[in-house]
Amino acid sequence: MRRILVVLLLAAPVYAQNSLPSWNDTAPKKAIVAFVEKVTKEGSPDFVPVPERIATFDNDGTLWCEQPIYFQFAFAIDRVKALAPQHPEWKKQQPFAAVLSGDKEALLASGQKGLMQIMAVSHSGMSTEEFARIVGQWFATAQHARFNRPYMDLVYQPMLDLLAYLRANGFKTFIVSGGGVEFMRVFTDKTYGIPPEQIVGSSAVTKYQFTPNGKPELLREAKVLFIDDGPGKAEGINTFIGRRPIMAFGNSDGDQQMLEWTTAGNGARFALIVHHDDAEREWAYDRKSHIGRLDKAWDEAIAKGWTVVSMKEDWKTIFPATAQ
Amino acid sequence: MRRILVVLLLAAPVYAQNSLPSWNDTAPKKAIVAFVEKVTKEGSPDFVPVPERIATFDNDGTLWCEQPIYFQFAFAIDRVKALAPQHPEWKKQQPFAAVLSGDKEALLASGQKGLMQIMAVSHSGMSTEEFARIVGQWFATAQHARFNRPYMDLVYQPMLDLLAYLRANGFKTFIVSGGGVEFMRVFTDKTYGIPPEQIVGSSAVTKYQFTPNGKPELLREAKVLFIDDGPGKAEGINTFIGRRPIMAFGNSDGDQQMLEWTTAGNGARFALIVHHDDAEREWAYDRKSHIGRLDKAWDEAIAKGWTVVSMKEDWKTIFPATAQ
Repeated sequence: MRRILVVLLLAAPVYAQNSLPSWNDTAPKKAIVAFVEKVTKEGSPDFVPVPERIATFDNDGTLWCEQPIYFQFAFAIDRVKALAPQHPEWKKQQPFAAVLSGDKEALLASGQKGLMQIMAVSHSGMSTEEFARIVGQWFATAQHARFNRPYMDLVYQPMLDLLAYLRANGFKTFIVSGGGVEFMRVFTDKTYGIPPEQIVGSSAVTKYQFTPNGKPELLREAKVLFIDDGPGKAEGINTFIGRRPIMAFGNSDGDQQMLEWTTAGNGARFALIVHHDDAEREWAYDRKSHIGRLDKAWDEAIAKGWTVVSMKEDWKTIFPATAQ
Repeated sequence: MRRILVVLLLAAPVYAQNSLPSWNDTAPKKAIVAFVEKVTKEGSPDFVPVPERIATFDNDGTLWCEQPIYFQFAFAIDRVKALAPQHPEWKKQQPFAAVLSGDKEALLASGQKGLMQIMAVSHSGMSTEEFARIVGQWFATAQHARFNRPYMDLVYQPMLDLLAYLRANGFKTFIVSGGGVEFMRVFTDKTYGIPPEQIVGSSAVTKYQFTPNGKPELLREAKVLFIDDGPGKAEGINTFIGRRPIMAFGNSDGDQQMLEWTTAGNGARFALIVHHDDAEREWAYDRKSHIGRLDKAWDEAIAKGWTVVSMKEDWKTIFPATAQ
């Protein structure tokens, strides 16, 4: 009996000061801990019951890297290359020719239309199960060129600490990302400990149909159902989660409305922005970046007193030391 | 110390044969219990880990009544009546004139277009918060004409037993309904113990905007985002939940694809249909009903051996004895 009790006690979450080991003891860590302590303390005027402890995280640039291109777009590029032998016509057809020859200027020149064509051939026309298999295979084999590591290793250790810390304090953690929900679900449970039903993202229309052997499947169509970015993040939180978060974490202008929506709720609220200012260990970019631009949201963070993390000053480490 | 241990042991779920007290000891109850026991028994070839124990429930006709009209449509009708003083022109304008005079034939004659107009004035043009307030007020005051009880009392006690039994066995319970997700979320947590983030339903497009005093709000537009019915239920499960259920519960042809999708997965799966055959205690309707028609899904249930519940034979009670 005593042994059972010891096991039970050990299993209980015990979080001391050092619960965010990859964070320096600077202002952002202190602000996070102070907020969590006040909303979890019974009897505190800021106490929030467990079911309402909702925390939402952007993914690209907040939980993992997004440079030099969004990882999902790197997947799309690799997928075009993998499919090219079946499409000899692509050698002379933009935007595919640009992808195959590595011509970045021609690729950029193909614009939004070109992007949509690349996304269409890499993300639609197959069943949801087949898509998950293709993405899983890519994650198992592709490597990021700068770090020579699998993409799933390029997650931020301090944010992994934070996810664990919040969950140990009764929070339910969600991803609310502009990335494709079915792309993310392939790795988010294993990597972040966030289950598929807590991933909100952009989505394609799917079509229920039967395979020749009579099995139902969902065909991914080249048609957008929902874009979970900018104002879409507030809308997505409402439609998919149905509760307003009490904490929200982002890194770019695409997260501005999620942070506004979160902090506009009654009671204690917390908003945090990760500022990429560490060119040595990761990247440095903000107001003028094409990817993950942080401009208007930064101004609003300063005006409203949201917490801004300097990756350089506030994070002891960036990536997990060993493979996930 | 011993006291803590006793508390912990008492808190553990202990479910005996009588865990579904409102169910008769007939085949459906036996089938449910046998399934749950085999998927929760460690070492069993059918064992399913806790995170994959997903159970999805239709709402109208499965968890609560849907006669003589869907309760959400009763809300819409009442809402038109409440708004009528501000719209004197409605007295001469269909479908509103038909609603106000109670002319069912004229209402039916207004068809899909009329229905959409009624839904638009009752469900859009206000913020999501204002809509929730209006719906909450309706639930607090409106009564079902046949039973003289609030609509929230007309939930099925055997299904409340079942939800509790499944959750005690590690299942995560979801609603997957054609009803409006924001309409349902007003009562589903309190009534069924299912939190907002586990409600999948039909949804309207919302628009992120600011009130005159600078507060962000989401405006409900008269535009459909997603219809969660028929094939849409399989699509909705995939998009919103991202896992295939291992148990699914419905009552009509609108649930057929959800049950097909559920049972087409690998491993042990369970599908159940509630058959409304109790005109005395509730209603009797199936193949020819305009609401909750059970025809094709019934044939498939018989062909595939899905469990079919006779409300008359298999349920001891229909509604909770006292108010929720």
